[in-house]
Parts: sequence; structure tokens; C-alpha cells
Amino acid sequence: MASEAASIIGVDLGGTKILVGSVDAGGKVSHLARDLTHAEEGADRVIARLADLIDGVKAKLGSSHVAAVSLGVPGGVNSEAGVVDKAPNLGWENVPLSDALEKRVGAPVFLDNDVRVAVVGEHAHGAGRGTHAMVGVWVGTGIGGGIIVDGRLHRGQRGVAGEIGHSIVDRKGPKCNCGNRGCIEALASRTAIERDLRKAIKRGAKSAALKRMKKEGRDTLSSGIIARLLSDGDPALTKVFARAQKMLGLFTANLINLLDPEVVVFGGGIAERLGEDFVAPIRAVAHEHLLSKRDLAKVRVVATELGEVAPIAGAAFLARQRLASHPLANRATVG
Amino acid sequence: MASEAASIIGVDLGGTKILVGSVDAGGKVSHLARDLTHAEEGADRVIARLADLIDGVKAKLGSSHVAAVSLGVPGGVNSEAGVVDKAPNLGWENVPLSDALEKRVGAPVFLDNDVRVAVVGEHAHGAGRGTHAMVGVWVGTGIGGGIIVDGRLHRGQRGVAGEIGHSIVDRKGPKCNCGNRGCIEALASRTAIERDLRKAIKRGAKSAALKRMKKEGRDTLSSGIIARLLSDGDPALTKVFARAQKMLGLFTANLINLLDPEVVVFGGGIAERLGEDFVAPIRAVAHEHLLSKRDLAKVRVVATELGEVAPIAGAAFLARQRLASHPLANRATVG
Repeated sequence: MASEAASIIGVDLGGTKILVGSVDAGGKVSHLARDLTHAEEGADRVIARLADLIDGVKAKLGSSHVAAVSLGVPGGVNSEAGVVDKAPNLGWENVPLSDALEKRVGAPVFLDNDVRVAVVGEHAHGAGRGTHAMVGVWVGTGIGGGIIVDGRLHRGQRGVAGEIGHSIVDRKGPKCNCGNRGCIEALASRTAIERDLRKAIKRGAKSAALKRMKKEGRDTLSSGIIARLLSDGDPALTKVFARAQKMLGLFTANLINLLDPEVVVFGGGIAERLGEDFVAPIRAVAHEHLLSKRDLAKVRVVATELGEVAPIAGAAFLARQRLASHPLANRATVG
Repeated sequence: MASEAASIIGVDLGGTKILVGSVDAGGKVSHLARDLTHAEEGADRVIARLADLIDGVKAKLGSSHVAAVSLGVPGGVNSEAGVVDKAPNLGWENVPLSDALEKRVGAPVFLDNDVRVAVVGEHAHGAGRGTHAMVGVWVGTGIGGGIIVDGRLHRGQRGVAGEIGHSIVDRKGPKCNCGNRGCIEALASRTAIERDLRKAIKRGAKSAALKRMKKEGRDTLSSGIIARLLSDGDPALTKVFARAQKMLGLFTANLINLLDPEVVVFGGGIAERLGEDFVAPIRAVAHEHLLSKRDLAKVRVVATELGEVAPIAGAAFLARQRLASHPLANRATVG
């Protein structure tokens, strides 16, 4: 049974790592625990690892009651059924995650898409606090997002609203993973930045990127490496990165022209690390390209406040809402 | 005082013509009357003409009570103050239209943007009936629109939401009136179609367009002429028009990826005349470019059902909402 005071355990299940924490009714996250996902070991082992992490946080909470566990998952989910439909980064298809975890942790288990819960977290407790309309843009290997209207997550008729990464901004631009051309994800994701950087280096542009990646034993450009190279003034990356920011600025203008939200919040690894340095040029380009310049100062474009705990806070927030509307609920009955 | 049974007089004030009608509580439009706007004669004369038309419809209504007059205006408005901020097609700036008309017609006078009221009309009584989320795309000399979320018009924090014409789809594309490049308005409005057609003709493409325009005494390409040329199989226009439909299809995919609405409704002169012939290729391109193909049959892309009376029905609908929430209201107190 849920009580206001009970904690909810929030989980960010990523392709690389798992982050777990307890969240109180005010959105405060504590007792963080983390582990690597090791998705290659298969769903059963990942679920066992999740259960262990959750048990660990429960133990730290001592006698206080855990009302639910709630997860953000990197992929398509059926929240009502508690099933992960498809999560390419985990190699999962049709995994009944809620049922499997409920047996292990003895509490109702909710799940939703990871970016969506991060956006909800940022709206409930972070940079979007108190706003009626907000758009969240999460920039990582891809670009995901979420839309808040009338203070609530807008899910759409098929439950797939917020696929903002696949907005076509440059219809003759580079090919996107989705098959289209010039989606914002193909222009400004970390993957797109790495593609453009490698191309520039091949053409002879100066960059320490490859050396740095080798040194850190990585074969892709992480947000940590991006931040480091930028602070070193790396010539090629600086240029490629500024171009990605410009694309995000045009895209942000589109979003604001369309929805006129109180705030557009940028999240994901790069936004977490660079904060205002990341969003300032995006904001400038967006403001410049808006149709209505009325009350421009009210049009906020900001970086995540919650950083890595946004998904945990958001997942817990959604679970609390479900429990509040169905106080006797277990997950199977609250769809 | 408003009663459920009272009629509301809806007005579509256009740059070229004025259309007025009475609207009952069920959204039925009757007693249509129309006149040319003659904006060049100045605001006072246009307002006098509006008052005459409204009086005419009142006379036809006989003894039945008129609860309010409600207008759609082609431009930026301050609905609360009843002021037309800026309407380039009328040459108006800061015209206190509601006050001026209230003195003449003896009923509260509301106003809103013309495309916005058309979208509301289509949602309340037309192709979007009963939907929670709908996007309206109105294609004319420009491209305007409106977004319905949770069954209500989404106005945004500054009241400027729905400026969908200025979504950048082709960032290296043709220059738009707004100063940016490749906005959907610069790719697929009637103005863009005419520009591309003239360019094609200059390059030697075969078209009867210029002859037809001359014959009809017009110096621009009207939707009537477009429809006629298409049905004649005009080679240059057929090609240019198909390209505009393709651009609208890409743009519609963006909208659906973002908002996952139950329906996207196309309105404006071309959509009114061509109906399904206009939207079928748009729908096909949109469906092809969607990220999530789940329940594709539920993703409706359709033409306006109400046609030219959509703004009248929508303006009346908004007025009825305002009167219902403030039964003793005159316009000045319901902001």
C-alpha cells in the first residue's frame, strides 16, 4: 500500500550502466547505487543484477516502506503490460520485465521509456518545475525527447509522441538510421558529431580526438571526451560541435514556433557536462529564428538541472501518480 | 445574456472577402452572407461593412437572440483586449475591433486568429470531431495552423503556438518571408507553388497557367486556377504541385513523430477544392516517413470537412465557451 511518506525506488536501466536510487515524495533522490549492465550476458542476468541493486537500496532505506519500483528503459515499452517491446541497446525484445522483477523485489514494478521519464523528472523536479508546457530534448547516441502540455506528459494516441529525433530539418542532409534524410538525430546527435569529426579528420583537419579515444580505450566519442577536447580548443571538434549546436538551434526554433512552451530543456551526457556552454549557442540561434519575437526573454532554453538522476526522479514521479490514482494498485491493474 | 439556444454570429474576415453566418449550439451554420473586404478603403469602412453584414444576418434570424459576435481575423490578435495587433493583409495595426463593433451590433464581440478559429471549428464540428489531439495545417498564400491537445486549442505561453508554417524542413531551401530558409511555407504554400511554377515556365516547361490567369483577370495563382490546371493535366503545374505535396508529407511526418495526434486536417482553398486528391499523396509520404509504423491505419491525414465555414463555426465555438464559463460576461471581462 502506498503512503505519501513511502519511498519509491527509481531505476535508470541503460545500455552501458544501471543507476538506482530511492526517491522521496518531494523528488529528492538518495542512496544511489550503480553497476554496469553487461547486456551481453542476457536478460535474466541483467534482471538479477537489477534485483540485487534494488535490494541494496532497500537495505539502506532500513525500515521505511518501498511503495514501488519504477524503471526507465532505453527503447519501446508497453507501460500498461510492463513489457519491454524492443530495446536495441540491450538486445531485448518482448521482455516481461515488470513481472520478472516483481517476483524478486516484492513491490509493484512500473516501467517507461528512459528519455520520457527523464523529461518527466526534469519537469516535476528540475528545470521545468511549475511549467505548463515544456519540451525536453535529450542528446546522446541518438536524440530523444518528450513533450509536456497542460503540465502533463503528452503521450499521443499510439503512445509514441515525442519522437523528436526524427524531425526532418535538412531534407537533403545526411542519412539517418531511421531511413530518412536530415533528421535532427542525423545532424546533431553524438553519433552525428563523431561521424562529422572523423570525416573532417580524414580531410586533414587537426584534431586530437583519435589519440584521446585510444588513450581512454574507447572506440567511440564519449561526452567526456567531447568536453575535454572542447576545453582544449581542439580545432576540428570545435567546428563540428558548433555546427551541431546551430542545427539544434534551428530545430529548437521549430519546436518553439510550434508549441510556444515556457522552456526547452536539453539533457543527456553532453548537456550534463557542459551545461550553459552547450545551450547558450543553441538558444541564440533559436531566438534569432523565431517567428514571434514577443516576450523573447520568457522563451527559456536551458540545460538539465537534475543531470544523471533525472530518469530516476521521473520514473518515481510517474509511479507515484499511478499509485495515487489507484491506491490499491499493483502494476497489472493500473493501465 | 447567453442561453444554450441563442445563436452566435461567426465572421471570417479575410483580406479579400468577408463571410458571415449564424451558428447554433450544435455548430450548424446558416444564413450565410458575404461581401468583398475592400481593405484599401480603411478600417472604418471595413468595420461599417462588417456591421452591415452582421445586421443582415440578425434580421434573418428574426426574434431569436444573438448571444455574441465572434470573428476570425487574418493576423496577430490580442483576444483578451479584442484588438487586432497586426494584420498585413488588411493593412491594420492596433485596431480595437471588438470595441468598435460592439458599439454597432449591441452584443459582445470576440476575436481570434482566422486559422486558429478554423482549426477549432474543424475540431469541434468537422474532421477532428471527438479527437483528443489534432493538428490543423491551413495551406493558402502562407501556411498556418493550430494544435489541439487534450481536446483543447493549445495556445502556448505567449499565445503564439501553432506557427507551423515556419518549421524549417529544408534548411538550405528557398528563402521564406520570415527571413529563414526552407520553412514549409516557403516550400509548399500557394505562393511557393506559384514561384516554382513561374520558374519552371521560364526554363521552358509547358504550362497553360499564365494564359489561364490572364483570361481570369488575375495576377496570382488562385486555388481555383490550380484545381483547373491539375484537372487539365497541365505538365509544369502537375510536377510542381506534386513536389509541394511531397514537402507537406515530410512535414506531416515531423508533426506526427512529435505529437502522435489522432488526425492531421488540411484546410485552406486548395484542400477545400481538391479534398482527398490533395491529401492522399501527403498521407502516403507521411506514413512512409514515420518512425513508428505501429497502428498506421489510426494515423489519419484528411481534408477539411467544413470548408469555407470552418472559421465561422470555430469562432462561434470559442465564443460559446467563453460565455459558458462567464455567463454574465461581456468581452472585456472574460479575458
